[in-house]
Amino acid sequence: MTLDDLTTPCLVLDLGILKRNLAAMAAAVARHPGLTLRPHLKTAKSREVARLAAPDCGPITVSTLAEARYFAEGGWRDQIYAVGITPRKLDAVAALNAAGAEVKVITDDPESARAIAAHPGPLRALIEVDIGEGRGGVTPESDALLAIAAALGPRLAGVLTHAGHSYLGRSAEDMVAVAETERAGVVRAAERLRAAGHRVEIVSLGSSPTALHGRSMAGVTEVRAGVYMFGDLFQAQLGTHAAQDIAVTVLASVIGRKPERNAVLLDAGALALSKDRSTEKAPKDYGFGLMLDREGRRSFGEAILTRTHQEHGEVQGDGPLPFERLPIGALVRVAPNHTCLTAAAHDRYHVVEGGQEVIAVWDRVNGW
Amino acid sequence: MTLDDLTTPCLVLDLGILKRNLAAMAAAVARHPGLTLRPHLKTAKSREVARLAAPDCGPITVSTLAEARYFAEGGWRDQIYAVGITPRKLDAVAALNAAGAEVKVITDDPESARAIAAHPGPLRALIEVDIGEGRGGVTPESDALLAIAAALGPRLAGVLTHAGHSYLGRSAEDMVAVAETERAGVVRAAERLRAAGHRVEIVSLGSSPTALHGRSMAGVTEVRAGVYMFGDLFQAQLGTHAAQDIAVTVLASVIGRKPERNAVLLDAGALALSKDRSTEKAPKDYGFGLMLDREGRRSFGEAILTRTHQEHGEVQGDGPLPFERLPIGALVRVAPNHTCLTAAAHDRYHVVEGGQEVIAVWDRVNGW
Repeated sequence: MTLDDLTTPCLVLDLGILKRNLAAMAAAVARHPGLTLRPHLKTAKSREVARLAAPDCGPITVSTLAEARYFAEGGWRDQIYAVGITPRKLDAVAALNAAGAEVKVITDDPESARAIAAHPGPLRALIEVDIGEGRGGVTPESDALLAIAAALGPRLAGVLTHAGHSYLGRSAEDMVAVAETERAGVVRAAERLRAAGHRVEIVSLGSSPTALHGRSMAGVTEVRAGVYMFGDLFQAQLGTHAAQDIAVTVLASVIGRKPERNAVLLDAGALALSKDRSTEKAPKDYGFGLMLDREGRRSFGEAILTRTHQEHGEVQGDGPLPFERLPIGALVRVAPNHTCLTAAAHDRYHVVEGGQEVIAVWDRVNGW
Repeated sequence: MTLDDLTTPCLVLDLGILKRNLAAMAAAVARHPGLTLRPHLKTAKSREVARLAAPDCGPITVSTLAEARYFAEGGWRDQIYAVGITPRKLDAVAALNAAGAEVKVITDDPESARAIAAHPGPLRALIEVDIGEGRGGVTPESDALLAIAAALGPRLAGVLTHAGHSYLGRSAEDMVAVAETERAGVVRAAERLRAAGHRVEIVSLGSSPTALHGRSMAGVTEVRAGVYMFGDLFQAQLGTHAAQDIAVTVLASVIGRKPERNAVLLDAGALALSKDRSTEKAPKDYGFGLMLDREGRRSFGEAILTRTHQEHGEVQGDGPLPFERLPIGALVRVAPNHTCLTAAAHDRYHVVEGGQEVIAVWDRVNGW
C-alpha cells in the first residue's frame, strides 16, 4: 500500500521523524540523572507510539478516561490522569486500579480530596500546583495546598505542575526562565508538604519546551511532555524541534484550482485540520496549516491554508503556485498548526518512513 | 438513564428543539410549491436524525464518502455528495451506485468532468456554480460552465451553488438579498446550459439562512441546508433560529473553581467543543461557547468559555458566578459556537426531550 491507495483526508505519520523527536527528548531528560520521563499520550493516543515513547510499558500521562483504559489494557500500568478529577469519575479509575493499573488522579480541590480519601477503591492523587499559568492548581504557598494534602492523607502521591505559559515564550532563554519557575514552584510545594509531615513521592512537571530547556531538575522526580513526539508549526517556532521535524501531516487531495486568485482547494478543511490558530501570534502565522508536497517537502514555498470550511481548505501561494503540479486529485500533505487537535479528528495513522509506502496502520483512542 | 449517568464531556441532543427547527425549515420550504428540501447531513451525520429531517429516505446531501456509504446502507438512495470530487474517489461512488444508490457528485473542473464521463460505473454529476462566495465553482457566465457540461455529456445532472457568504449577513434583509443572488445565479447557469442543449434536471442551492429567507425560488428545484437542525450561537445571531433553539449542547463537569478570577474550569475543552470562533465577528462574541445549567437554561448569565486547552475549558462570568451551584463535579451544558464542528468530536448523541432522562442514544458517522 502506498499513499496513492489512501482515501483523503487522512493522517500520515513519519516514523523516522518520530524516532528523531523521541531521541531528542530522551537525550534532554538524560542530562538529569535519576529523572524519569513520563510521556503524555494525549497527542498520540496510540499504543504503537507508546511502545516507542514509553518502552517496556513505562510510566505515562493521559488526558481522558478512555486513554487510561486503553493504555491500561495495553499494559501501561503506571499512569497519571492529568486533568482535574471529579468525584463521579473515581469509580472508573478505581476499577482500572482494582484490575491491576496504578492510575493516579490529580486535584486542586479539598472537597474532591475528601471524596478521593473516602472512596472504597484503590486510589492515589497528586495535588495540582499552579506556578503561573493560571489554569488549574493551587499556588505553592497557599493554605489550600496543605488542606488538600491533609484531606488526602495517605492517598497523597505527590505534586504536579504544568508550565503551559511556556507557550508564550519565544526564545530559548524564555524557556529556560519558565522552566526554572516551574521547577522552583513545584519543588517548593513538595517541601512545604514534607515539612507538614506528608510523604511526597512524585514531584512532576513538564511541557515540551520546559522539558527540553530546563537546566536544573533538582528536586524533581519526573517530567511530562507530549507534543514533542509529533511536533507542529507552532512548536517548531518555540524551538521544540526543527522546522522539518513535523512527524504528522494530513494527506489531502486537490479538489479545486483557482489560478485567478493563486489558490487551490483541498479536501482537508476544518474537520481534518481543526480550527486551531496557535500560530496566530507566533512570529510566522501559518493560518490553518502549511501545504507540503506529497513527499512532505516545502516545495510549494509558503503555501498557507488561509481559509477552512468543514471539508474545504483553501491554500494561497506566497508566490505563483505551480498549477501544473496541482491538478484535481493531486496528493499533497498539510503540516498542522497544532498536532494534538489535528490528530484528534482521525482514528488512525498511516505510517511511512520517508517514502510513499505505508508500512503500518496504527489506531488511536479518541473520545472520552 | 439520566444525564447523571453519562461520562462527561458528551453530546446532548434535545429532541423537542430538533423537531421545532425541522418544522421551521419545512414551513419555509413549503412557501414555494414544488420545491424540494434536500437536507445536508454533514452536521448531524446520524440516521436517526435523517429519519426526521429526510423522512421516507428522501433526498439528502452529504459531505464525505463515509456519510454517503452510511446513509446509502441506511436506505437513503438519492444523495448529492457536495464536495468537489476527485477522479480517485469515483470508484467508491460508482460502487455505491452499482449497489442501488444514486449518489451524485459535483465538479467545477473540465478534467474531472472527463474522468466522470469516462468512468465505467454509474455516475452523474452536478456542476458547482460560484455565485459570489469565492470558494469552489465556476461563475454562471463562464465559458468553463459550458465546457464542463460538454465534457459530462449525458452524465450532467444539474447545477448546484451554496451562498456561504450568507454567513456574513447580519439582518433578515441581508439574507433576502444574498438568497436572491444565489437563486438568480444558479438559475442563470441552468438557463445557459439549457440554451446549449443540455438537460438540467436539478437546480440546487442553499445554506440555512438563504433557505429560510429566500422570497422567490423561481427556477430552483431544491434547497440544501444542514446547520438549521441543531443551531448554534452563531446561527442564532444570523436569525436562523431563536436563541433558545440550540438543540445540541455539550454536557460537561466542573473540574476547577477559581473564585479569585470569577471562573470555573470544565472538562469540555478544545477537543470537546472545537476551536471554532465563528462568533468572533458576530454582534455577540461567545468565545468558545456559552455555559448553560444542566437543564439547558441561561441561568448563569453570559458565562462564556474564554479559554480552552485540549481537555479544559475556562468559563468567565459576566457577573459573579454562583459558586454554590458550581461545586467540583457539577453538571453544566455548553451551547456551541458552531455545532457542525463541535458535534464532530463526538461519536454519539444522548437524546433528551426537555428533561434529564436520556431517552435514546444515536450514533454518528465521523471521519472519511
